[in-house]
Amino acid sequence: MSTTYETLAEHFRKLSRLEHAMTYLSWDQMVVMPEQGVSRRSDAMAELAAIHHDLLTADELGAQFAKASAEANDETAVSIREMKRVWSQATCLPAELVRAKIKAGSRCEHGWRTQRHANDWSGFLENFTEVLELGREEARLRQAADAEAFATPYDAMLDLHCCGDSKALIDSVFQRLRDELPGLITEVVAKQKKRSLLEMTGHFETDVQQQLNHQLMRSLGFDFDAGRLDESMHPFSTGEAGDLRITTRFTDDGFLDAMLATAHETGHASYEGGLPQAWQGLPVGGYRNMCIHESQSLLFEKQIFLSRAFMSYVTPQVTAAFPQMASHSAENLWHLATRVEPGFIRVDADEVTYPLHVLLRYEIESDLINGDLEARDIPDCWNEKMQSYLGLSTDGNYSDGCLQDIHWTDGAFGYFPSYTLGAVNGAQIFACIKQQHPDWQERLAEGDVVFIRQWLQEKIWSQASLLESQPLMVAATGQETSPESYLVHLRARYLEDSY
Amino acid sequence: MSTTYETLAEHFRKLSRLEHAMTYLSWDQMVVMPEQGVSRRSDAMAELAAIHHDLLTADELGAQFAKASAEANDETAVSIREMKRVWSQATCLPAELVRAKIKAGSRCEHGWRTQRHANDWSGFLENFTEVLELGREEARLRQAADAEAFATPYDAMLDLHCCGDSKALIDSVFQRLRDELPGLITEVVAKQKKRSLLEMTGHFETDVQQQLNHQLMRSLGFDFDAGRLDESMHPFSTGEAGDLRITTRFTDDGFLDAMLATAHETGHASYEGGLPQAWQGLPVGGYRNMCIHESQSLLFEKQIFLSRAFMSYVTPQVTAAFPQMASHSAENLWHLATRVEPGFIRVDADEVTYPLHVLLRYEIESDLINGDLEARDIPDCWNEKMQSYLGLSTDGNYSDGCLQDIHWTDGAFGYFPSYTLGAVNGAQIFACIKQQHPDWQERLAEGDVVFIRQWLQEKIWSQASLLESQPLMVAATGQETSPESYLVHLRARYLEDSY
Repeated sequence: MSTTYETLAEHFRKLSRLEHAMTYLSWDQMVVMPEQGVSRRSDAMAELAAIHHDLLTADELGAQFAKASAEANDETAVSIREMKRVWSQATCLPAELVRAKIKAGSRCEHGWRTQRHANDWSGFLENFTEVLELGREEARLRQAADAEAFATPYDAMLDLHCCGDSKALIDSVFQRLRDELPGLITEVVAKQKKRSLLEMTGHFETDVQQQLNHQLMRSLGFDFDAGRLDESMHPFSTGEAGDLRITTRFTDDGFLDAMLATAHETGHASYEGGLPQAWQGLPVGGYRNMCIHESQSLLFEKQIFLSRAFMSYVTPQVTAAFPQMASHSAENLWHLATRVEPGFIRVDADEVTYPLHVLLRYEIESDLINGDLEARDIPDCWNEKMQSYLGLSTDGNYSDGCLQDIHWTDGAFGYFPSYTLGAVNGAQIFACIKQQHPDWQERLAEGDVVFIRQWLQEKIWSQASLLESQPLMVAATGQETSPESYLVHLRARYLEDSY
Repeated sequence: MSTTYETLAEHFRKLSRLEHAMTYLSWDQMVVMPEQGVSRRSDAMAELAAIHHDLLTADELGAQFAKASAEANDETAVSIREMKRVWSQATCLPAELVRAKIKAGSRCEHGWRTQRHANDWSGFLENFTEVLELGREEARLRQAADAEAFATPYDAMLDLHCCGDSKALIDSVFQRLRDELPGLITEVVAKQKKRSLLEMTGHFETDVQQQLNHQLMRSLGFDFDAGRLDESMHPFSTGEAGDLRITTRFTDDGFLDAMLATAHETGHASYEGGLPQAWQGLPVGGYRNMCIHESQSLLFEKQIFLSRAFMSYVTPQVTAAFPQMASHSAENLWHLATRVEPGFIRVDADEVTYPLHVLLRYEIESDLINGDLEARDIPDCWNEKMQSYLGLSTDGNYSDGCLQDIHWTDGAFGYFPSYTLGAVNGAQIFACIKQQHPDWQERLAEGDVVFIRQWLQEKIWSQASLLESQPLMVAATGQETSPESYLVHLRARYLEDSY
């Protein structure tokens, strides 16, 4: 008996098999492919993407969705909702716009790679103006495809990365952070100034770091029969259950950044690995959105790895690996790992200042897309906000200001908020876990994270995309995304030194 | 202006982009993929293969080939010939037969993995009988698709791997080897018995071997911006120009096998890397056949690496890498690397006994496919030929006899001859190079292989599939594939100790 639903489901499973191919070919390109492989690889990836797009936008799907929806029961309705979201996102743009976007985005990104270092804002603006125009057109069309769901054009862009989390929700969470963080940062910086720390010195061999990071992943519950750790320019996580691939980056003057990245990517990989096998290949079986995905990585990185308790578990491993660390106490290491300092660069920011980098970008990009700001006004707006949020001027310094990120260059608007919604969700989820496991610090000090993984498996990973993001947060934590746990966490860690 | 030819060509370029995806996903599976990735990977590979098959057997191609052939000029006719060969090979079998073949082959191969070690011929025979029946049906249909081209059903199977080289040609080459080799082997073994050699001892670290093999590849002209070396269970070469991937296998009790495999696979990769870029993605731009491909790998392995001259170049690198080799002269190393001994196992055989392993398989498989031998008679036939060719009995010993190879388990009949035609072609090609470069030994002793690469680039690699295999051999060497250079080479190296 092949129902219309089953026909649709098999169609999406087929799409997922093409996505599998693209996923691992991308990994290959970023981790092992030699330099001269790039041109043929690009052609092959474009071919797979075209085949995927043709299948996803096949004429018959519209009628099949209508028929399947009419026949749907409680079980299939949710799966159909998620298939339809993917299908609508792919079909609501005309092919010419998609092509124009890829062309303009690729030119802008290519130019940016040199313009960034040359501090060349006007060169960038020339390319970016077209990217923004096409982005606005895209947002308008996406909004028009479901005007009931999307209050503004920017909401329709959010749907691509933060689906279920509206601009209105984000505004209210971010408003509270905007009110609280600048004052908090001043207090933390003043407090940290009074400490005297033992700094790291010497050389940290990559192969020893590699072993240390493997050990960390095992402690965090990673199964090496179902995944691997490699090295790449920028750390990332990809793959699917059974074959989870994470990367980190080693430098020889320290080991903390690599371990933080490894913990972070292990969180992403754990979520993917915990998605229900029964729905594999179906959109309903995929991760909820990037705000939930990032909540898992930041929970592993900030809540577990950076906790005083887990750091005391890790320290003996570190001192065993690197003799020059013998004189460092767990306490000192924890202080080194939790330094707060306002800076220009988002990716280098600590967890206290990071949200302000995101707020700034969110405010600018939502205004850009909704037509309340023009591209030429970005640098002034950036400078003004940096001064107000972090007390730093980027006047005339585009390299360390509005040219630092790749996201906008190819039109990826609506992604930035997921970083901070992830941090906020992660803190909120971890607050529940702590409440339900009052001995959490003793357990982490012994390297036991099983109780955390079980909680996440039950409440988040196994739920995949069954619920929309806010109902998922309510079911897991009792409330919608709220900044309070995050603020409590920052005060406890950075002002009270309590964990 | 899009001619019918250009439409066809673009269709085949599209196919080649899917082949690119499958190529690197296979590499991934064999080199880096964790254990639990296998099930999803198999699904994705099957999906890509199905999409590829649908495109290759698309209804409109028949009419397009007819139209393109009618419009063809000298330049396009050859390209059409090669596209048509690929298309005919894919379309001449009904889908049910292909499915039955995959199913029976997969069952037989799966069973073989345990039956081989259990010496279980009768268990194997049960599965293999169906594989052979389907193989005969396949050969009959392939022959019927072009009865003029294929004198016997087995010729039609040869077309898949050794296209252009007929059973009649192979029979005449192999007859001469059958007459000469058994006697030659007896002489060589008697001669080698009189030598006293210094044996290798100690432990050979993998990471040092890795560096040594990288060094060897560089000496042989491999460009690491356009390829890589990795480790896998069985050495292989894959990929395409710009991204050539070879693997080798390290053991810690010696380094010669790994270096021989590396030299061999570097030969395969050099051929692929030297194919003309202008025809990339078109069948006419691909390697000619496996007999030519294997001639390149064996030329690099046997003619270059195993030569006395090149071994004298390599020896100082070996002694620098492994202190325990300090007491080994280049001469001693060369003798160790060129030992001849009749044995049961094809893949362990030296270059003098190897062809007899192939002859035996060729005689059996051609008789099986052409209906002159039944599956149940294989063990007796094998034993008889092993006794006659190599003086070894496999009576009751199936594991080291007819169960040792994977090829027949999934119906790959017609592949074996390419190993020995490759060795013969390689010796014939190298004989020409030696004749045109009388100082070849001095050059190899300095690690200079540029003159060889240039010759091969001009006469073989750049020719891709422009000519059929025998016209290619004639254009390059002045004659069709002939065993004489190979026999001269064996006598010179193994009886006269001359290179």
